Amino acid sequence: MYGKFLVEGDKPVRELLKSNFKVDTIYKVQNTNYETRNRETEVIDTSEAELKKISTHENPNLSIAVAQIPTGHSSNLVQPEGLYIVCDSLNDPGNAGSIIRIADWFGIQKIFFSEHSVEVYNPKTVSAAKGSLFRVECVYTDLKNLFEQNKNMKVFGTFMKGNSVYTSVLDKNGFILIGNEANGISDELIPFVNEKISIPSFGKAESLNAAVAAGIVVSEFRRQLTIGH
Amino acid sequence: MYGKFLVEGDKPVRELLKSNFKVDTIYKVQNTNYETRNRETEVIDTSEAELKKISTHENPNLSIAVAQIPTGHSSNLVQPEGLYIVCDSLNDPGNAGSIIRIADWFGIQKIFFSEHSVEVYNPKTVSAAKGSLFRVECVYTDLKNLFEQNKNMKVFGTFMKGNSVYTSVLDKNGFILIGNEANGISDELIPFVNEKISIPSFGKAESLNAAVAAGIVVSEFRRQLTIGH
Repeated sequence: MYGKFLVEGDKPVRELLKSNFKVDTIYKVQNTNYETRNRETEVIDTSEAELKKISTHENPNLSIAVAQIPTGHSSNLVQPEGLYIVCDSLNDPGNAGSIIRIADWFGIQKIFFSEHSVEVYNPKTVSAAKGSLFRVECVYTDLKNLFEQNKNMKVFGTFMKGNSVYTSVLDKNGFILIGNEANGISDELIPFVNEKISIPSFGKAESLNAAVAAGIVVSEFRRQLTIGH
Repeated sequence: MYGKFLVEGDKPVRELLKSNFKVDTIYKVQNTNYETRNRETEVIDTSEAELKKISTHENPNLSIAVAQIPTGHSSNLVQPEGLYIVCDSLNDPGNAGSIIRIADWFGIQKIFFSEHSVEVYNPKTVSAAKGSLFRVECVYTDLKNLFEQNKNMKVFGTFMKGNSVYTSVLDKNGFILIGNEANGISDELIPFVNEKISIPSFGKAESLNAAVAAGIVVSEFRRQLTIGH
């Protein structure tokens, strides 16, 4: 299965087939039909019992596809008119999936992950990302290089102690840098941060879940873009 | 283990001991010490190998506590000056934990769950909630009754199609009603909703993760409270 990943369930498989991802095989129960756009995809009828054997879920839902992990040259190129999420050593597969969904919801087309971040093609991330994994480009790269190559873009770093995201002036374009779940943004990236932002606390929790924090920050960028500062 | 739950790891156990939860037993490796506030808590030295056997984690971290699920009369009483999260048939244990953390971060002291929601004392929720589970009161109740008994409080329901949360006037007090992950707010609760709110979409995702959506909405309540509409 090197270079391949599983997409499980009827709806995710349909979203996969709408994307540009290459699909090797679809295993499906009878009476479920898929239109494949090219002959390279093999469609195999199988029983529910067989589906269960290859599934990572307890109750596979009608079908499972084997797709190819994209191998195209992943590029650090960014559009000057663009907002990007950048994840520094993100560990949790569920968080990665939720963040991919956040990007897709808020119209962010590309997420950069540091090379030590969780692999987004693992079953938990694929499941948590819903179809968004097929629409948002996920690029693994050296984040230091990324920031050095794109010095024209502002880096907004999320910190426990920074300026309130509610009152900071957030740009239409730039990088939103999210730190590791336990350790935050790594020391070597801090010099690239142009603006330290944080979510004001009103209670006693030490932190928020990383995906929740990412959602709140990205939402605030979009709120300011549409409603104004 | 009826009426008990596990708290795993050094830091969560310390937060547990600061709370009013009753703790039956702490299993710990040697050289880790805990101050228990009463004699009812038994502290037992054990080996890492033994800890692994009772742990639900791969690598238990120094200690595991057996605590009592609170049995006090869970009450529908709310303060007129208060903001509450209300979860309608929340299913996912990780989402429940993240929402408890959101409440604790934003100073919300009580969450109401419909009776069919996930049990918050399961190991995944305990782990995802970090110490916040010991500070935020979680009440299981009939939500219809809750709303009927508190008609003075406004119900803000999160919907896929509602008024933008960015431009809605959000009150300091009220109920923030979060729907089920797949089905949203149930039909029988919709008549109680005073204001339908939604998070504007800028992309193609069908939805956000329930905890992420809750975080964005609660954050927006707090933003308007501090910064103004």
